[in-house]
Amino acid sequence: MLALRVEKKRLSIKEIEKPDRENEALVRVLLSGICNTDLEIARGYAGFSGTIGHEFVGRVEACADRALVGRRVVGEINAGCGSCPRCRTSDSRHCATRTVLGIVGRDGAHAEFLTLPVENLLPVPNSISDKHAVFTEPLAAACGILERVKITSRNRVAVIGDGKLGLLCAQVIALTGAPLVLIGKHSSKLSIAERRGIETANPKEAAKRKRQFDVVVEASGAAAGFALALDLLQPKGQLVLKSTFHGKTQFDAARIVVDELKIVGSRCGRFTPALELLKKKAIDVDSLISEEYSLLFGVNAMRRAAERGVLKVLLRP
Amino acid sequence: MLALRVEKKRLSIKEIEKPDRENEALVRVLLSGICNTDLEIARGYAGFSGTIGHEFVGRVEACADRALVGRRVVGEINAGCGSCPRCRTSDSRHCATRTVLGIVGRDGAHAEFLTLPVENLLPVPNSISDKHAVFTEPLAAACGILERVKITSRNRVAVIGDGKLGLLCAQVIALTGAPLVLIGKHSSKLSIAERRGIETANPKEAAKRKRQFDVVVEASGAAAGFALALDLLQPKGQLVLKSTFHGKTQFDAARIVVDELKIVGSRCGRFTPALELLKKKAIDVDSLISEEYSLLFGVNAMRRAAERGVLKVLLRP
Repeated sequence: MLALRVEKKRLSIKEIEKPDRENEALVRVLLSGICNTDLEIARGYAGFSGTIGHEFVGRVEACADRALVGRRVVGEINAGCGSCPRCRTSDSRHCATRTVLGIVGRDGAHAEFLTLPVENLLPVPNSISDKHAVFTEPLAAACGILERVKITSRNRVAVIGDGKLGLLCAQVIALTGAPLVLIGKHSSKLSIAERRGIETANPKEAAKRKRQFDVVVEASGAAAGFALALDLLQPKGQLVLKSTFHGKTQFDAARIVVDELKIVGSRCGRFTPALELLKKKAIDVDSLISEEYSLLFGVNAMRRAAERGVLKVLLRP
Repeated sequence: MLALRVEKKRLSIKEIEKPDRENEALVRVLLSGICNTDLEIARGYAGFSGTIGHEFVGRVEACADRALVGRRVVGEINAGCGSCPRCRTSDSRHCATRTVLGIVGRDGAHAEFLTLPVENLLPVPNSISDKHAVFTEPLAAACGILERVKITSRNRVAVIGDGKLGLLCAQVIALTGAPLVLIGKHSSKLSIAERRGIETANPKEAAKRKRQFDVVVEASGAAAGFALALDLLQPKGQLVLKSTFHGKTQFDAARIVVDELKIVGSRCGRFTPALELLKKKAIDVDSLISEEYSLLFGVNAMRRAAERGVLKVLLRP
């Protein structure tokens, strides 16, 4: 089968064996999405070698659970050991020996086929198209913010970063009824949020609103975004770190102590709330799709996804 | 009256006017304690100029509330505007225009007299000696951890730093029943905690216990302590920042995102729980007293307090 591989920091499309993992379901990938994490992995982040990609919708080809065969599915990307305390409390996302689809120790989704444990798979309702379902994983990550901090209609919230993740985070938070501003540099991207009734601002305007927010979500992945986030928080405010920065970041610890701030890391979220939102068509994901490439042109697609102004690039095997 | 002053980064004992602030109580200081923050202020932190000191026990000499005159008191150090939303919800600790005793815009406690708003003062029960009562403020800061994170007997906790603050934090957390280790470099200081049944370790031993703790309190004020704290936390763990570092600190944001850690700033705490603990003699503060100086020798006392191995130095006006 065809697969988009990273080997020694080099990207290529290769013909490889169809995957076969004991006790796992075999899934034919219908559509996969390129995430910024894919771009970082291609640059050497996480030291991964193999097939990249972790956002997908597919169809089950073979599976111990016969009822799933032929079903359209999405899949949670962390596969735990199944026996540690984390896994036993249904949070394999933090199992110390987990593998992660296309990120840690497990070939990923930019391929014709992938495998995942059966318990990772969730059937996709018929009313959700492939192009929407492929957003389940990043939308779940955005919903994951609400697993980590409580946001009500009384909290003033800012989201920093108008990329794919920032636009999903802003749309999810808008549903809480909280007064919200999305901060970004690209008017074309900000307009996607504006069409959903979300207030937007550029970083320069936003910097005038120091100490006015209860929660700030950093989704720009830039050190400047982190510094701005701290400035915007009022005392006892919470900064949700949603993006993995590359390398070390500097911060002023005194500010965190004196103003009693919280910095809250947030990575993956659960898929069920995301599928619910997609089913209700509560999130505009169509506007987030920039282009679709055939998997055969996956290397070009990755290059395109890294260009300024480009949002989600999809791959079709 | 005599006062220990910082002016242009120079410490001196000066004869100055007795303080007189409208609508505030006049308190004769019986005993004051030197905090690491005093040492940092003397080095230029917070840009403060005036009488330093914020840990004290005193006797009310004059006050609008006649019932308080002659009473022995301790005092919360933040004085808010009284009218902003923070103050109206009884949290003047975060009033944007607050003054802070001996730290921000208000002369402090290393003097013969100080003034504070009446509502900041709490009578000290007779059963608490001056030498114990002077620990109310730092003990309240230690108790403040429990205002910011929930700690139960099921949480594994580490406290980093065997100075005055670390020893108070460890003793307060020990009362929750949580399995606890105090990490420090000084066996003489660690032995104070050991006598209370608290497990101790040096940083080298502790570094072997990576990802084993639910809560880590950083009370060493050193960048190395912060790095160790991150290493000790298990996924979804919480790092309580209790010490104000000087300058910027580096950290690995990816670690915080991937392991979904929280960094929680903690500054001042409420006095009532601290007075309760002192009344119950639940905390060993006697062992934390290194020396007592006459206020007249306040400059020497500050020099002594900055020496390695020295714990609390008290000043008696």
